[in-house]
Amino acid sequence: MSRRWIFRSVFAASFSASCAACFQLSADTPSSSIEFNTATASLQFFATTASGCLSVSPLTLPPPAARAPRRFRPRIVDGHTEGMPSEGEFDLIARLAPFLATSGEDLVVGHGDDAAVIDVDGRGVCLAVDVLVEDVHFLRAVSSMSDVGYKSVAVNCSDLAAMGATPSVALVGLCRPTDVSSADIQQLYEGMSEACERWGLRLVGGDTVAAQALAVSVTVMGDVAPEGVVRRSGARPGDHLLVVGSLGAAAAGLALYRATGEFDDDLLIAHRRPVARVAAGRTLADGGATAMIDVSDGFGADLTHVCQASGVGAVVEATALPAADGVAAVAKRLEVDPYTYIAGGGDDYALLAAVPAPAAPALATATGGVVVGEVIAGPPSATLRLPDGSTVDMAGMGWDHYGEERA
Amino acid sequence: MSRRWIFRSVFAASFSASCAACFQLSADTPSSSIEFNTATASLQFFATTASGCLSVSPLTLPPPAARAPRRFRPRIVDGHTEGMPSEGEFDLIARLAPFLATSGEDLVVGHGDDAAVIDVDGRGVCLAVDVLVEDVHFLRAVSSMSDVGYKSVAVNCSDLAAMGATPSVALVGLCRPTDVSSADIQQLYEGMSEACERWGLRLVGGDTVAAQALAVSVTVMGDVAPEGVVRRSGARPGDHLLVVGSLGAAAAGLALYRATGEFDDDLLIAHRRPVARVAAGRTLADGGATAMIDVSDGFGADLTHVCQASGVGAVVEATALPAADGVAAVAKRLEVDPYTYIAGGGDDYALLAAVPAPAAPALATATGGVVVGEVIAGPPSATLRLPDGSTVDMAGMGWDHYGEERA
Repeated sequence: MSRRWIFRSVFAASFSASCAACFQLSADTPSSSIEFNTATASLQFFATTASGCLSVSPLTLPPPAARAPRRFRPRIVDGHTEGMPSEGEFDLIARLAPFLATSGEDLVVGHGDDAAVIDVDGRGVCLAVDVLVEDVHFLRAVSSMSDVGYKSVAVNCSDLAAMGATPSVALVGLCRPTDVSSADIQQLYEGMSEACERWGLRLVGGDTVAAQALAVSVTVMGDVAPEGVVRRSGARPGDHLLVVGSLGAAAAGLALYRATGEFDDDLLIAHRRPVARVAAGRTLADGGATAMIDVSDGFGADLTHVCQASGVGAVVEATALPAADGVAAVAKRLEVDPYTYIAGGGDDYALLAAVPAPAAPALATATGGVVVGEVIAGPPSATLRLPDGSTVDMAGMGWDHYGEERA
Repeated sequence: MSRRWIFRSVFAASFSASCAACFQLSADTPSSSIEFNTATASLQFFATTASGCLSVSPLTLPPPAARAPRRFRPRIVDGHTEGMPSEGEFDLIARLAPFLATSGEDLVVGHGDDAAVIDVDGRGVCLAVDVLVEDVHFLRAVSSMSDVGYKSVAVNCSDLAAMGATPSVALVGLCRPTDVSSADIQQLYEGMSEACERWGLRLVGGDTVAAQALAVSVTVMGDVAPEGVVRRSGARPGDHLLVVGSLGAAAAGLALYRATGEFDDDLLIAHRRPVARVAAGRTLADGGATAMIDVSDGFGADLTHVCQASGVGAVVEATALPAADGVAAVAKRLEVDPYTYIAGGGDDYALLAAVPAPAAPALATATGGVVVGEVIAGPPSATLRLPDGSTVDMAGMGWDHYGEERA
């Protein structure tokens, strides 16, 4: 298979899935997710963005029976897609920017990073919010209510981990449709509680309201020393890139489910119950990490965010990426390039950090992470060096729009 | 009109409205809203609750054309309603209690109050979250997108005001259906921004996701001295009850709209753009208020919450309640007892505080508030003394289920 397929197929899959799953969405309009300081818990296709805080088109996951036929294959041109609404996401980012605070006074980190950080008398209070919506970010066929609750807390902890922060409390805003019973909500809370216990949070309040569709909005607060905050913007040429956690399991598990209806629990656990790398985040922050992000949108997309925020390039060795067990087998079975999942999938919640080269070996050992590449000088770009020595620009998607159709 | 109608009509109205507006709800099942530490931005009927943190059945607001005929009139018995699902709200409260933290260590206030308070090195960090859902908490026919944004911030500031806290930052989780354009979202953010400016907050981040229905989940963080926090639970016999702000405007304005389709902007402003009484909250906290709550569920319901949390009774003079201008006229026109709106309506976002009697006159002057009654010893109960000298128990709803039908 041509490597031109790597990104193209990810996009096409997420695009058609969006159309099928979000039944209020028109067939030719991808769903959209825009994050201002937190990562959405969704699989998302690669998009070059102006701000580094835009992610387009969560990979929604219709059950196989409900999947609509692929009616439309958008061409990808310079990071824009045909078929997008004329008032697109770039327009929206520009519209909203004036209303969002980035920094200043006691605001150490505002919108545009994984979480906000406020200086409270020298202590850093770190805040993130993520919303999980049924049929956009999870399917009840794949995830139990307990899984959804667990994940709603975990993804926020992952955002805090990427700042070097330690979560402390959570609040939940729950939109509850009538087909969600009290027992369902109890299970959701059980899942949240399990995640809270694992990462040392207390659930201190919230608001449950009647709604048409199930959505869980969790806010997590955490602690960080203001001077210890790691942003996306500090990566420097010569830094090494470290990944803690494995890549591709959720994307491969979901692709397998979509293609065959099979549940591979070993892969889907990454989607159902992601692991927030809180301790590793602290270790990396303490060890001098210059930039950090959690890999929620896909490795390539999130590395692109770091490169754009830091004004640097990055070169990554594909063979060094820590692929999750079982990803290669799914890729082979579905005749998809494995890097589709490893570099292009999302929902991994691995940590990606830029660290000073001399510190990299020790930090890798301390966190169980692996060095996957290097930060270079130059305009923002994220390059993947494939096993055959050729390279792919993970940020630019224009490269593939001459590729042949997949059989 | 018999005073037995006061509560009955409020309940019946909110019940039928719920059924009509929430089209996923079955006709005989009211929508529900459960708040763990924050007030929902909805009109709600009176309900006696075990925990003081439960509010049932937001008054949803279908446009007149969409209103369903009243098919079912539930009987109200001991705070329970027939027609509720067998696994009702009391069951849910009991199910969730084990997962929610109330206090301990650095958690000054957990679930069960208007907001949570965490002690961060001697500084109190105050957190609240409220979710506003279209067709449950607002109608686009009544509120502009800017109004919705404004209100989503204001109602959280009101929760913080009731703790004596000062808001500092806000985060937004936005569920965006496809019929909400970029321009709509910009207007929503303009409204949030206006409210942020008014109460001194910065909007520091959030998450926007595709969804079937419009919902806005806002989290607000604020500052408070941990020793200055005012809970619901501190009211003592002999304290005076002070109300800052006026009552009944939103309920009357919405009732008029529902009955006639008329927009009375002077009344609806309370529903569209509520005022958070932040400065008054601080003044009351500094002045020794023993308990405080914001009046979001309706005066009687919220006073009941305070009485239950504090283990006291309360007697209120109906004529002392600060009715908003125009409420009496709507009540007369619709042939409804005005206390339906004044004591039974919601969305007022007035502050209700218990203050030591000697401090009451000065605090009333300083805040523009009025003394409406007194805290008394005895089992939790909230009594309204009507102009004719008779009394109504605002907490207990069993009293009215022998009342005659309204013509």
